[in-house]
Amino acid sequence: MRQSKFFMPTLKEAPADAVAESHKLMLRGGYIRQVTAGVYAYLPLGYRVLRKAENIMEEEMSKIDVPEMSMPHFLPASLWEESGRLKKYGPEMFRLKDRHGRESLLGPTHEETFTEIVAKNLKSYKQMPIALYQIQTKFRDENRPRFGLLRGREFIMLDAYSFAATADQLDQQFEDERRAFANVFKRCGVQVRQVIADSGTMGGKNSTEFQAPADIGEDTIATNESGSYSANVEMAESVDTFKQAPEDPKEVAKVATPGQKTIADLVKFMKVPATRIVKSVLYIVDDKQTVLVLIRGDKKINEIKLTHLLDADSVREANDKELKEITGAEKGGVGPVKADWADKIIADNTVKGLYNFVVGANETGYQLKNVNLNRDFTVDDFGDIRVANEGEPDPVDHQPLKFTTSIEVGHIFKLGTYYTQTIGSKFLDKNGKAQPVIMGSYGIGVTRMLSAIVEQHLTKFGVAWPKEVAPFSVHIVQMKMNKEEQTKLAEQLEKKFSAKYDVLYDDRKERAGVKFADADLVGAPIRITVGKKAGDGIVEVKRPTDAKATEIPVDKLDNFVNKELG
Amino acid sequence: MRQSKFFMPTLKEAPADAVAESHKLMLRGGYIRQVTAGVYAYLPLGYRVLRKAENIMEEEMSKIDVPEMSMPHFLPASLWEESGRLKKYGPEMFRLKDRHGRESLLGPTHEETFTEIVAKNLKSYKQMPIALYQIQTKFRDENRPRFGLLRGREFIMLDAYSFAATADQLDQQFEDERRAFANVFKRCGVQVRQVIADSGTMGGKNSTEFQAPADIGEDTIATNESGSYSANVEMAESVDTFKQAPEDPKEVAKVATPGQKTIADLVKFMKVPATRIVKSVLYIVDDKQTVLVLIRGDKKINEIKLTHLLDADSVREANDKELKEITGAEKGGVGPVKADWADKIIADNTVKGLYNFVVGANETGYQLKNVNLNRDFTVDDFGDIRVANEGEPDPVDHQPLKFTTSIEVGHIFKLGTYYTQTIGSKFLDKNGKAQPVIMGSYGIGVTRMLSAIVEQHLTKFGVAWPKEVAPFSVHIVQMKMNKEEQTKLAEQLEKKFSAKYDVLYDDRKERAGVKFADADLVGAPIRITVGKKAGDGIVEVKRPTDAKATEIPVDKLDNFVNKELG
Repeated sequence: MRQSKFFMPTLKEAPADAVAESHKLMLRGGYIRQVTAGVYAYLPLGYRVLRKAENIMEEEMSKIDVPEMSMPHFLPASLWEESGRLKKYGPEMFRLKDRHGRESLLGPTHEETFTEIVAKNLKSYKQMPIALYQIQTKFRDENRPRFGLLRGREFIMLDAYSFAATADQLDQQFEDERRAFANVFKRCGVQVRQVIADSGTMGGKNSTEFQAPADIGEDTIATNESGSYSANVEMAESVDTFKQAPEDPKEVAKVATPGQKTIADLVKFMKVPATRIVKSVLYIVDDKQTVLVLIRGDKKINEIKLTHLLDADSVREANDKELKEITGAEKGGVGPVKADWADKIIADNTVKGLYNFVVGANETGYQLKNVNLNRDFTVDDFGDIRVANEGEPDPVDHQPLKFTTSIEVGHIFKLGTYYTQTIGSKFLDKNGKAQPVIMGSYGIGVTRMLSAIVEQHLTKFGVAWPKEVAPFSVHIVQMKMNKEEQTKLAEQLEKKFSAKYDVLYDDRKERAGVKFADADLVGAPIRITVGKKAGDGIVEVKRPTDAKATEIPVDKLDNFVNKELG
Repeated sequence: MRQSKFFMPTLKEAPADAVAESHKLMLRGGYIRQVTAGVYAYLPLGYRVLRKAENIMEEEMSKIDVPEMSMPHFLPASLWEESGRLKKYGPEMFRLKDRHGRESLLGPTHEETFTEIVAKNLKSYKQMPIALYQIQTKFRDENRPRFGLLRGREFIMLDAYSFAATADQLDQQFEDERRAFANVFKRCGVQVRQVIADSGTMGGKNSTEFQAPADIGEDTIATNESGSYSANVEMAESVDTFKQAPEDPKEVAKVATPGQKTIADLVKFMKVPATRIVKSVLYIVDDKQTVLVLIRGDKKINEIKLTHLLDADSVREANDKELKEITGAEKGGVGPVKADWADKIIADNTVKGLYNFVVGANETGYQLKNVNLNRDFTVDDFGDIRVANEGEPDPVDHQPLKFTTSIEVGHIFKLGTYYTQTIGSKFLDKNGKAQPVIMGSYGIGVTRMLSAIVEQHLTKFGVAWPKEVAPFSVHIVQMKMNKEEQTKLAEQLEKKFSAKYDVLYDDRKERAGVKFADADLVGAPIRITVGKKAGDGIVEVKRPTDAKATEIPVDKLDNFVNKELG
């Protein structure tokens, strides 16, 4: 490709509102341009990277026998009513009416459509296991689109869906996709950690995220040093190292603690350690149930874990008004003793093995001390609903947890039968019995991954693209366009390397400084500069991470290029 | 690809609402499925054809040095306000508001976006000529989506845009695109005619359509036998063979013609040939100007040609009320003599060379006879504003015009400076003078073209895909999956041909009848049946257009396949 024909509007400075380094680089290099908030055009340079990444995905999906297809963007709202997600999705979903007034939406994801179009066609166990995928534009009306391609309103995803007749088949499909995804990220040059993840509004329980560590990441992952444990902090577990020495139960006593609302207040006022206090928080679950949640005073409640333990759609803390109405007490005064007003009492595992502890008296400004589990109150269910902290031992090898910000670039779920049951898609199993199809769903944030690649491969002046996704493999930069011997050599090299590699040839009548600055932004694995010594058969080569260029005779160039790109 | 892993839900009968043969075939073969009216999912088989067609387009665009990029689907309405098309586009445009209430739309085409993102970056003549393209989903809220992929609400287009500093550069770009488009259609196996076309709401004047003759087509093209003349009937010209013998002008006389409203009425009532009557029709132009349009009584007015002659945005016939108010006469009584109320009088060329003819008297129920041009009235402008009829001589070689229904699969326009002037994009020319960038726009209806290919390649039981776009090149059909010698040979052939071609291997435990019926729908250029004689090294080959299969020894298969597909 001749650079004179290649639209690549570079900028000296990125616009002031670009914060993320990857966003700045892609704007400066003319990879992308914003059309409206969170909505980008992929200019030729960006488009080339995108397509190379997509090609890798296509190859890896093909290796696990998953064929490609494509669903529409414009979808009828009715499908989403069936699955119950029309309401759940909220304002992030773009909705519109067509000319006949029919409620429609722009697909933010495609579980419903695949269930309708694919699962409903699977009538017999003989047609399974089967899987399909698409690489396609999604729409989500983010409240605050930001960081360029990282959180946009229109973006590209690979989404794969698997359909199985048995749980074993699903497990196999899940592992196939995991392997394919890992290969994709490896070939695209993105370093990722596979972490335990929450499945959010997608439904299903068994899910793994592919997280790419990066400063600009919006997620935090908790990992141990050996790599044997990795989890999104939303789901991270840790070992609770505190252990209270056994004590004989003492008599419960009521203590006035006027104006003391927080655990820290009580520690100071009552002169007891936080580990001797049990915090009680009232939650409203699925907008109807009242659940009192207990945790040891030095720990925090993780609402995602809580949601899972309760198998709920939503949890929220009761507000001050609700708290007073339901419990009779105000904040700081609520507790589990004689809490008949709660539909359920749930406790974190840290509440086990405590003796003679402090809880709210269910009266504003009063606590009870010397309270004991099972003697003074009972708990309906225990579980890990605690926020894990950095430095705590991981649950596998007991190494200290390390927290890292990262970008979620992929996510694989065992969906199970949620969609096939709500939308109604059954097949006949080996015994002739109708069963719901068992689904899995697997996604890669394709455009977001581009941001992750750049974040992980920035250089001082530009980017060093991993070779399989570089927009061009070889960048030939001719110093002076009016020097015939340079033109002759450059054209010769262009022809030779184009036979095997993607070559960009800078044939513009520009100053050397402009050409080199642009080349740093193109970030091709190899830059060949054809300059003064062209007549002597000598050029310069430079890799983006090299501090400076090196002279090389033209007859040794083949070897160098093939070795670097091979 | 193993067919057991390949989601391809075939149907015995197409749904009753499918009318077009191509639509039926694509539904029956599991190429596509409707998700909502005019909105389709491309299942794996359809997606393969789509991608092969897209690859051909990418290769042909690359040959003329036009790089690929991609614009977003979700666009701000503001851009379309600048160009004036927000109103013009009407109810076909999908509009929506984002969560902040900002007016947005789904791109039905991208002239505005390319002007904004590309043309505005071109500051100097040195940066031109340059061109870009995308292959991307478009949205148009058709009132009556129909014929499957032929007229959908969500569809895929290739749209290219060129940017030039001079008219010569534009001409060159236009010819490059014309050549590239012609190659695309040839390689995709679509027979097309390049025809003179109207440019409609796109702006610009010089435009050519690529029309694929097909029964289901919604357009009609007028062509001569030698191929030297082809035009959309909307724009078709023909030679007017009528010639009136010269006469001396007679005195004008008023004739009562009570209740006679049409030319046919007058011919009968006045006993004159239609060629001695001049029809006068009052038009309202651009909702403000009153233009009286004259044409010889035996001919019809072509409103598209009229629009061009007047350089107008819109023309419409005055309604009865307006006619009476403006002219004082009712239908049938209007004429050009003393028509001071008209802003302008325009006449078709057929009005020239007439003597002593009849026109309306501008009084209900009266005509004037013996009227003569220039003596009794004058005309502001003449031109060809006449509907051409089948059988009339073409304007180039005077061969009879033939009308054919056809599908518009491509359209190339010289846009000129309409968008760059309205949106404001100027560059400095060689003399340092600011000039608007000169644009061209070039489109292929990619998914619509798929319909055209099928329409042109139907067989008795399925389709015969042209080899470059066939979903698979070789279809290996194994008769009995429980016969070891068949499996051995089929797998051997799969491995051998997969190295060079796209192979589908029917490994399903299905009856022969089912397998052959499905193979007819897949339409691969070569079907290899591995059956009874597998053990003797004999298989059957069949091309979709062959009446029946032919036995062939396995060692001659290579030659046969390479010859067919080479």
